[in-house]
Amino acid sequence: MTEACIITIGDELLIGQVVDTNSTWMAQELNKSGIRVARRVAVGDVWDEIWNTLDEEQQHADIILITGGLGPTSDDITKPLLCKYFNDTLIVDEAAKENVIRIFTHLNRPIIERNLLQAEVPSSCIVLQNTRGTAPGMWFNKNGKVIVSMPGVPHEMKGMMEIDVIPMLLKQFSFPTILHRTLLTAGVGESFLAELIKDFEMALPADIKLAYLPNYGMVRLRLSATGTNKAALEASINEQFEKLQELVKEYLVTNEDEPLEKVIGKLLLRKGKTLCTAESCTGGYIAHLLTSIPGSSAFYDGSVISYSYKAKEDLLQVDHQILEARGAVSEEIVSSMAKGALKNIGSDYVIAVSGIMGPDGGLPDKPVGTVWVAVGNGQKIMAKRFQFRFDRMRNIQLTASQSLNLLRKFILES
Amino acid sequence: MTEACIITIGDELLIGQVVDTNSTWMAQELNKSGIRVARRVAVGDVWDEIWNTLDEEQQHADIILITGGLGPTSDDITKPLLCKYFNDTLIVDEAAKENVIRIFTHLNRPIIERNLLQAEVPSSCIVLQNTRGTAPGMWFNKNGKVIVSMPGVPHEMKGMMEIDVIPMLLKQFSFPTILHRTLLTAGVGESFLAELIKDFEMALPADIKLAYLPNYGMVRLRLSATGTNKAALEASINEQFEKLQELVKEYLVTNEDEPLEKVIGKLLLRKGKTLCTAESCTGGYIAHLLTSIPGSSAFYDGSVISYSYKAKEDLLQVDHQILEARGAVSEEIVSSMAKGALKNIGSDYVIAVSGIMGPDGGLPDKPVGTVWVAVGNGQKIMAKRFQFRFDRMRNIQLTASQSLNLLRKFILES
Repeated sequence: MTEACIITIGDELLIGQVVDTNSTWMAQELNKSGIRVARRVAVGDVWDEIWNTLDEEQQHADIILITGGLGPTSDDITKPLLCKYFNDTLIVDEAAKENVIRIFTHLNRPIIERNLLQAEVPSSCIVLQNTRGTAPGMWFNKNGKVIVSMPGVPHEMKGMMEIDVIPMLLKQFSFPTILHRTLLTAGVGESFLAELIKDFEMALPADIKLAYLPNYGMVRLRLSATGTNKAALEASINEQFEKLQELVKEYLVTNEDEPLEKVIGKLLLRKGKTLCTAESCTGGYIAHLLTSIPGSSAFYDGSVISYSYKAKEDLLQVDHQILEARGAVSEEIVSSMAKGALKNIGSDYVIAVSGIMGPDGGLPDKPVGTVWVAVGNGQKIMAKRFQFRFDRMRNIQLTASQSLNLLRKFILES
Repeated sequence: MTEACIITIGDELLIGQVVDTNSTWMAQELNKSGIRVARRVAVGDVWDEIWNTLDEEQQHADIILITGGLGPTSDDITKPLLCKYFNDTLIVDEAAKENVIRIFTHLNRPIIERNLLQAEVPSSCIVLQNTRGTAPGMWFNKNGKVIVSMPGVPHEMKGMMEIDVIPMLLKQFSFPTILHRTLLTAGVGESFLAELIKDFEMALPADIKLAYLPNYGMVRLRLSATGTNKAALEASINEQFEKLQELVKEYLVTNEDEPLEKVIGKLLLRKGKTLCTAESCTGGYIAHLLTSIPGSSAFYDGSVISYSYKAKEDLLQVDHQILEARGAVSEEIVSSMAKGALKNIGSDYVIAVSGIMGPDGGLPDKPVGTVWVAVGNGQKIMAKRFQFRFDRMRNIQLTASQSLNLLRKFILES
């Protein structure tokens, strides 16, 4: 089977200064085209280490996709290294040169020598023009292996993958079909789920694999199938996926590989209803999740992020005396925030949250991680207390996912 | 030099279903302790591939840190594999067993056989108790190499790294000092910066390395130094960092490795002022960035996320007629949103944004990526139009960073 390795280059990956989202995206896209990624390797801006990694990864796979190290500055060594690796010399690529000039002219910036050097490439490579930046990509065919170098800037790499790399790979190799079906459950632990579907798992055909992906108090289950007969594979994975859905139906949130906020969006669209939020402790994170979905303005009206007491009182008409008496993190306040948001934003449904995310601000009766969530509509508001116990960011994420799930159940039951 | 490799295990990493934030965090923490990460490798839940990777990575480094594959379900094969790899047998660890029982009792869930199996470990390993979950970690000392296996759940892994792994590594090995100094620039391209500091870069001592990290229209510059004499190294990197700051002072945003929202927070705290936001197209992302900072309630009051026209009118008193005449993405509306937020939330400074993030919603005179940003205070509101050209998520991120930078300049000049 023809497989791929992804090599990402940059010291920033090895000192943890940036999160590597490039190889995640690449793996996703390759997978959709039937190209299995066997390994992902990150190495620093160190000549010998990149060189050795190039040697080694060719033992593991026939397709080596590299990102990073193509910038115009001296810490970018990928291009000279590849040139040397393939015993080649650099030549100017005229189309790449025109591209550099076009971009700098458009930006109204002076072109310096350093920018024009971006248009140099090893003479033996196929040049992949960069529609979104100045550094061209390079495609090498050597000894039956394909080695492709792309820029590390995410949107430049993405354009190149979509326009050139994946279509060219599909032309040059033949790949099997890879299919995935994923569902999301809530309200049940991984071990309990495993017991529930033990017999199903034992009886799975050899070409179908089951994986458990727990996160934020929920568990995703994924079936993956690999084969050559697409129609048969599809029929087989669908049959198994039906069985799986039936087994976990009590806990099923969605039978697609989609985040909870998208499930909510689809539910609201189907009902022709809209949602608003009133967020204190999550500080806009729930709004951000909802508005990350293209077209979310059709079901999401907006939010009041009431971090201060004044914002709670002026924008949500939360009662000053109750705020003083019960504190912002209380059933009364979160319910009152929900009512205020419904009234002022005029949506059909609402989520309101108020809590203590940490690291500071905990109280004896309300330790860090205490969160009140209210969900409801014009007829009914229901509130629930959660107690999380993690760091600030994780508490924010857990509050978001648990409150979205609470709303989901409320909508389905109302 | 004693170096580390990080191996992350899980098919989800190779099909792009999750972003690997574990190894980013681990790399950060190791780096702080002087432990260089030489490579990061992700492999699937495949017996031979994990086995081979274990063999290979020991050629690259003396410390191998593994996460993932320790769950209670059948797709988790790390523990049986390590047991076989070290020719060992599984035994029950009493402390780990007590931990499983304690957790399930606390959660009020029945304990099944599968959960108790979590307490089994190869007899030759040092058991690392898991304070945040059921799967214990395993530390193996073999042939001068250290191989550590940890759970893939991020907060469980983090607890184990902090409590056991890093302190134990520091005891067993001696590491050099690694120092970094990072600054952030805005308003200048990478190539131009490189020209500006060319002589400085050429003259850097051999033990100091410079890196360029461009993102969201800004460029971070990082100096990294490695050595054994901590005091001398510190003096040397500080001296170079002073020179670098001087060279780029016109574009300097901060001389610390911190995000822009933290720069804003510190600036506001120093002035004793507060900020509010009114977000349309960023949908809460700016609020989320600001409230991700612990203690942000001291400088951030809240936001109105006015996704719908009604929310803009009711919560920010934006004029209905202007909204109809000029459209939501216009100088008039974004300025009006800014004024409305200042008035209703009562802060000293404000950021307001309105734009078309895509993929849909573009107009002939306002294509996708058109964004109006207003920043100001009670005395003055200034607005600026931006034209981005990327995908929805990147447009949201660029709008956030550019508007925060605009506010930063406004505060400094006002």
